[in-house]
Amino acid sequence: MIGRLNHVAIVVPDLEEGARVYRSTLGAKVSEAVDLPDHGVTTVFVELPNTKIELLHPHGEGSPIAKFLESNPSGGMHHVCYEVDDIIAARDKLESDGMRVLGDGEPKIGAHGKPVLFLHPKDFMGTLVELEQV
Amino acid sequence: MIGRLNHVAIVVPDLEEGARVYRSTLGAKVSEAVDLPDHGVTTVFVELPNTKIELLHPHGEGSPIAKFLESNPSGGMHHVCYEVDDIIAARDKLESDGMRVLGDGEPKIGAHGKPVLFLHPKDFMGTLVELEQV
Repeated sequence: MIGRLNHVAIVVPDLEEGARVYRSTLGAKVSEAVDLPDHGVTTVFVELPNTKIELLHPHGEGSPIAKFLESNPSGGMHHVCYEVDDIIAARDKLESDGMRVLGDGEPKIGAHGKPVLFLHPKDFMGTLVELEQV
Repeated sequence: MIGRLNHVAIVVPDLEEGARVYRSTLGAKVSEAVDLPDHGVTTVFVELPNTKIELLHPHGEGSPIAKFLESNPSGGMHHVCYEVDDIIAARDKLESDGMRVLGDGEPKIGAHGKPVLFLHPKDFMGTLVELEQV
C-alpha cells in the first residue's frame, strides 16, 4: 500500500536557524520559508535527491504543532509522510485492521494541496504517520 | 554536502509487531529481523521505493537504544541518516562550523558496513543525525 517516503517533518524552535543549518552547514538545497496559515505552520523545504525534509514552525494561534514545541523546546522529529495511490482505500484497509485515523476520518487537503490523513502514533510504534495521496 | 536520506530509524518495543504493522497493515516490503550484536540492535528493514525505514530494537546488554526505549516505551523516531561522499571532509566542515560530533569524532563502521558518525541532536533542532559515507 504505502509507496515513497514523501517527507520527514521536523519541528524547529527557530526556522531561520533551522534553514541556516541545513543550507550552510549541511549544504542542502533549502527553500524560502512558506506560510501555510490554513495549516497553522510556516515551513521550509529541504530538498534531498530522493525525498524532502520539512522544517515546521507554528504559525498563528492554535497551531497543531504548538504543543509539540512546548514539550520539545529544542525541536524534534514530528512525523513521517508516506505516499499512497488511493487514500480512501488506504483508510478503509487501515480501519478494518483496527488502526485509528485521527480527526473525523475524512481526508483533508494537506500542505501540498493533496488529500492527507494522519494515523494515531500509538498504532504505529510511537510514530505519527501522515498518508498523502499522490 | 548531504545527499540522499539513507533511512529513518524508528525504535520499537516489539520488533515482530512492528514488522507485522509495516508488512500487513501498511503493505510495505519488510525484511526478516537481523541481529547486529556489534551495534546492540536487532533491525528490520522496511524497503520503500526511495529510501528505507529501519525498525530498531535493543539487542543484548548496554544497547545504545535501551535508554531511548525506557524514555519512550511506545517507541518513536530515533534518528535520520543522510549520505555523504566523504565522511572525513563532512566531519571537518561540521566541526569548523561548531557542530558537535558524538563520541571521539572518528567514524565507526555502521550497521551497513560503511563509515558513520552521529551528530549532537542539540545542534540539529532536536534531531539525532547520522552521516553515512556511501
